[in-house]
Amino acid sequence: MSTIENTVSNISEGNAQAVAGIKLGSANSHSKYQDRDDLVLLQIDAEASVAAVFTQNLFCAAPVIVAQEHMQQSTPQYLLINAGNANAGTGDQGLHSARSLCQTVAALTHCQPSEVIPFSTGVIGESMAVEAYAKAIPFAFENLSADGWALAANSILTTDLVSKTASVNIELDGVAVTISGMCKGSGMIHPNMATMLAYVATDVSIAPELLPLLLESAVGQSFNSITVDGDTSTNDACVLIATHQADNKKIEKNSQSAQLFAEALNLLMISLAQQIIRDGEGATKFITLNVTGAIDKDSAKTVAFTVAHSPLVKTALFASDPNWGRILAAIGRAPVKALNINTIDIALGQVPVIEKGLPAEHYTEEKGMAIFSESEIVININLGNGQGRATVWTTDLSYDYVKINAEYRS
Amino acid sequence: MSTIENTVSNISEGNAQAVAGIKLGSANSHSKYQDRDDLVLLQIDAEASVAAVFTQNLFCAAPVIVAQEHMQQSTPQYLLINAGNANAGTGDQGLHSARSLCQTVAALTHCQPSEVIPFSTGVIGESMAVEAYAKAIPFAFENLSADGWALAANSILTTDLVSKTASVNIELDGVAVTISGMCKGSGMIHPNMATMLAYVATDVSIAPELLPLLLESAVGQSFNSITVDGDTSTNDACVLIATHQADNKKIEKNSQSAQLFAEALNLLMISLAQQIIRDGEGATKFITLNVTGAIDKDSAKTVAFTVAHSPLVKTALFASDPNWGRILAAIGRAPVKALNINTIDIALGQVPVIEKGLPAEHYTEEKGMAIFSESEIVININLGNGQGRATVWTTDLSYDYVKINAEYRS
Repeated sequence: MSTIENTVSNISEGNAQAVAGIKLGSANSHSKYQDRDDLVLLQIDAEASVAAVFTQNLFCAAPVIVAQEHMQQSTPQYLLINAGNANAGTGDQGLHSARSLCQTVAALTHCQPSEVIPFSTGVIGESMAVEAYAKAIPFAFENLSADGWALAANSILTTDLVSKTASVNIELDGVAVTISGMCKGSGMIHPNMATMLAYVATDVSIAPELLPLLLESAVGQSFNSITVDGDTSTNDACVLIATHQADNKKIEKNSQSAQLFAEALNLLMISLAQQIIRDGEGATKFITLNVTGAIDKDSAKTVAFTVAHSPLVKTALFASDPNWGRILAAIGRAPVKALNINTIDIALGQVPVIEKGLPAEHYTEEKGMAIFSESEIVININLGNGQGRATVWTTDLSYDYVKINAEYRS
Repeated sequence: MSTIENTVSNISEGNAQAVAGIKLGSANSHSKYQDRDDLVLLQIDAEASVAAVFTQNLFCAAPVIVAQEHMQQSTPQYLLINAGNANAGTGDQGLHSARSLCQTVAALTHCQPSEVIPFSTGVIGESMAVEAYAKAIPFAFENLSADGWALAANSILTTDLVSKTASVNIELDGVAVTISGMCKGSGMIHPNMATMLAYVATDVSIAPELLPLLLESAVGQSFNSITVDGDTSTNDACVLIATHQADNKKIEKNSQSAQLFAEALNLLMISLAQQIIRDGEGATKFITLNVTGAIDKDSAKTVAFTVAHSPLVKTALFASDPNWGRILAAIGRAPVKALNINTIDIALGQVPVIEKGLPAEHYTEEKGMAIFSESEIVININLGNGQGRATVWTTDLSYDYVKINAEYRS
């Protein structure tokens, strides 16, 4: 039972409410997109705490390297995000570009360059139009507004078809607090017009050491539980900011309010992650894979991802073909220990198809077809082997996925 | 330097020569394909030695279970192969069907049921038409012939577009010996019309304990170094038979002739494996991925497969788009230790694109495009970190892959 159900007064998708202590400004650098803004400055009040996670890809982009350096040196005052160029695979020149843009922000706003955190998304391996972005920074600064989320969420997009925002409101000790977020991403990666970026802010008052723990846990359940194509970007990043400006009693570790806040944060980030999947490249279906009964959570997630990444499962989903043999074969090759064929159950929605490793007695092709014809499909896999569970969301593999990724640069 | 170059008198693809001690017969069960044979009986002379490897998939098919049982009990006298039904996901009934067909062969040929090894490929989860296959067995027996390879190679196909055979002839101590083989498979797996099956036979005289070692090594360099879609069948099997009927001095471990024979066997099995890739589902390109400079062979293979499985790399290859950022990003997320970005070189064919982790100075889009426009593409990745190396062959990801796998059952 979730305790949050009685506490959440409002969760809204497609709308990021203002968060006290956060302002956002957008501008158009005219370097890549002519008709829309492509640069965002996010201003953070001085007393805030910030946590962030970055891509594990060895070939991380220049801004990721600079961002991690700056996070170690200072508490961020500004986030600077550009769309259109990933500044990845750009060597020393790329590092210079990222640092130079941080210096531009610092000079304009009278902060230290290390208090500016850079993020980039777009084409890999091309030099950044540093001057164009630098010229746009003052315009973004002039436009800083607590209500700048919607415009900012649109300005960070690349191949995305829609902008992605959400807010959750909860009460802690009778005080209303807000968590708002925006993200972009359309493949799990699309290294040409790349990357998943997510920015979440809350006005909650919270012990700063809790932030990275809550962020890591929420990322595990949200952005690290989705996949379009199994690839991992050079530029992925997720930032969580707490401005401490709400009047709630400061959240401390292991408290009930920490638990409530964690649930609300997970809810918000799962919403953002699912918006990425719904906007997945060429996606025609939204797939939920529930794996239970694993020996541990990691094994459950590995089985779920092995099924989610199988091109044969994904094409069957695209075709609305309940080809359960492909699901079974994918589970059977998942690199986890202690799988036992004789304890595995698979259900398409609520329709059992495999029971204890064998075809379910009352399964019919018609029943499976009815489930697979829907645009939202749930596949339940019980390994019957323990208490580990995980949920992963993914897309099907369509002609349009091939088209989008084959034709992008032509 | 390979020592075999001076020794191989003939390697021929598309032609499997007779091997003394081996006869093959084909027949039509009329259960799935009306216009072609779909059942093969391969007869092995009594003195032969046989080694086999089977799928690692947990959900292995009934014939795989029975085959492994029988291999432990007896030396095989007959292989029985059917196409059209995989006899996988069929529970106890499937085991009964596989055993029943072995008994039919045993009764007809006066051998023990455990001396018959069953193999199936085709639709998963449907009951076998046991009687239809049983009725066809006497026809296959009547047709047994040393020259039956070509017909047999055609009879074991499912979604394959072409049959796949090869022979290698070498001289050992002045005596000519032959290795012949056939295989089927068109996705690394296609669990609906599933499976890679390979049968290799030689007349060479060889110490029997060498066979499984040579088979394992050759499979690692051939069938386990190819991928279409990263999936692994429930029915995969590869069999190596030595009939000892040639007059060569018996091959012993660590001898020069063992080395020569191993090289010839690898050559043959790589040829068969490459024929599967060339017939890959929807394949329009034949890709060779050479990874060198890894800390060990396993790491090299892991990096090669991570690139080979990336949908983004595969769609770029389909589009003839030298989108090297996708190759770089795939290497960067490969699950291997001790990767160092500053020592990695990537070349498209002979054209350097990444040198020491940075864009190569003289690379141009035109040079990359010229390489990627070819139908055969070599990608060379040097990790600069050790002596480990591996070569993997794969296909691109085309509209037709999605079409074949999405529309198969509709």
